[in-house]
Amino acid sequence: VTDRRARRGASEAALIAELERVFRGATSAEVRLGIGDDAAVLRAAGGASLVWTVDCVVEGVHFERSWLGWAELGRRASHAAVSDIAAMGAEPVAMLSALVLPAGTPSSLVRGIGQGQARASRELGCPVVGGNISRGPSVAITTTVLGRAARPLRRFGAKPGDELWLVGAIGGARAGLLSLLAHGRRGGRDALAACQRAWRLPRARVAEGRRLVGRAHACVDVSDGLAADARHLADASGVRLVVDSDRLVAAWDPRLASACRALGVDPGAVALEGGEDYALLAAGLRSRRPPEATPIGRVERGKGAWLETEGHLVVLRGGFDHMKSGDGERPRR
Amino acid sequence: VTDRRARRGASEAALIAELERVFRGATSAEVRLGIGDDAAVLRAAGGASLVWTVDCVVEGVHFERSWLGWAELGRRASHAAVSDIAAMGAEPVAMLSALVLPAGTPSSLVRGIGQGQARASRELGCPVVGGNISRGPSVAITTTVLGRAARPLRRFGAKPGDELWLVGAIGGARAGLLSLLAHGRRGGRDALAACQRAWRLPRARVAEGRRLVGRAHACVDVSDGLAADARHLADASGVRLVVDSDRLVAAWDPRLASACRALGVDPGAVALEGGEDYALLAAGLRSRRPPEATPIGRVERGKGAWLETEGHLVVLRGGFDHMKSGDGERPRR
Repeated sequence: VTDRRARRGASEAALIAELERVFRGATSAEVRLGIGDDAAVLRAAGGASLVWTVDCVVEGVHFERSWLGWAELGRRASHAAVSDIAAMGAEPVAMLSALVLPAGTPSSLVRGIGQGQARASRELGCPVVGGNISRGPSVAITTTVLGRAARPLRRFGAKPGDELWLVGAIGGARAGLLSLLAHGRRGGRDALAACQRAWRLPRARVAEGRRLVGRAHACVDVSDGLAADARHLADASGVRLVVDSDRLVAAWDPRLASACRALGVDPGAVALEGGEDYALLAAGLRSRRPPEATPIGRVERGKGAWLETEGHLVVLRGGFDHMKSGDGERPRR
Repeated sequence: VTDRRARRGASEAALIAELERVFRGATSAEVRLGIGDDAAVLRAAGGASLVWTVDCVVEGVHFERSWLGWAELGRRASHAAVSDIAAMGAEPVAMLSALVLPAGTPSSLVRGIGQGQARASRELGCPVVGGNISRGPSVAITTTVLGRAARPLRRFGAKPGDELWLVGAIGGARAGLLSLLAHGRRGGRDALAACQRAWRLPRARVAEGRRLVGRAHACVDVSDGLAADARHLADASGVRLVVDSDRLVAAWDPRLASACRALGVDPGAVALEGGEDYALLAAGLRSRRPPEATPIGRVERGKGAWLETEGHLVVLRGGFDHMKSGDGERPRR
């Protein structure tokens, strides 16, 4: 599928920069952190913070109906939104769900989405307390989540000398997505089916995020792809991140290599582009690394995100632009 | 425009009832009020409450590009969402904006929306602190707003013997919408142009809502139409609302009669169906009525919302179903 108009439109980063300029200065004493991190941070009583995020999944852009059940979609939308709260080391408190549904949508579809959201609520200890229903051209779920944190983790704060940590495997969900795109629906061989499950059934890493508080200097959830989110962390912290390619292989989803052989794609590229496993990428002192974190690199003075292979540094590329889908492999309309 | 599929789909009320069943029991100690009011209510420190809402506007469903500028759209989306906070007698604290944009959207469109949202932020004292951008089939803005209240007003609590109050004129925005639908774009004679402005440039009645705290027993914002929202208040409070037709005429937008003559429609029907002026409908003791509230009826034992004309009671009809658009006059796809 090719959409030439997408090439003419502004990139997501350009649009966000435009909005940052427009909203600059519009703040209040309640706001600790505005646009630019995984979640906004508001002042709460007793020195604590509220963290608050919103996330959206749209049919034909982020998913197709043949790829997953409605309950899986509802559950997935909630975990994806809560992942931003997890990346701040916060505890989710509640969520609201705004549904856009085409005319003629049967109640069974809405019940399915709701059952999946209710399952995510139970898994995450985060009830759905309200929402909105509108008609629209395709199914979309916008989820807003409130969380609470004594000391929220942010994207800035990584320091030269820190280790770079990955919590959770990466690449599996991306391989699953590529396989869904190639085959149009669920199914396929063992490793492919397992990777599709990784895409369909992600888990927000709330407990792991909370254990990073007091250990990590900075954290981001890997939702746009490891390469893109490593750049976000490097840019926000004003440092250079160096990912060690040998160590990265150790952090791959165990089914990634086999799935990529079946797909005929490079597992390294898939791992760097992969985002929807909702792993956490953090930086902190080696001595403070929690047991579930895999060291995958280091923080240095400098700029940008780099990959080191046999002593050579190359700029990390890849990742997902929510407006452009630059690699041509995402579904689009 | 007719969309037969819309007739087969479930109504908004049926879908919300479905979701209430699915989410029943999923709550926590943090939640004071879940699904079913203008906004959810969460516990905050010191006995205060957070109120929290989400609202969505979709191109081709709630607006057409020819009807208003992008900055007007952004401003309008923010005021519409904050109106739910106003109806709870709460003070808005901050908002997040999730944009869905077609591929190829120029940055000028996003800047326009953002400038309108920034204007609303200043008007409402409610900064935009973050958001999300996704690609999708048409422009949509989902706005989530957090507010704070010592004692939030709710839909339940109206008591037999209360007066029924309207804060703000009604019908103007509905007449403006009908004129935009009829003509396809802005323009027209004086009263029509004024009513179109009422639709394009609504104002969330935050100060008025806060003055109702300690005076009103229950409150709702008139967003689905006076008839529909009166039913919401009656059902939630377990009472009968009786709207006096003579007094209702006194609460009409001053340009309504003239605009309806030009449109060839009945101003009474337009006033009862009109929602997007974002007036507030409240119930309270006559002795506690604030000066800006117009008494339009009374609360009795019984059920439902009724219109009294020369001593005769008829059931109040009309109002907007966000899934069905039952009166055939809203734009649809």
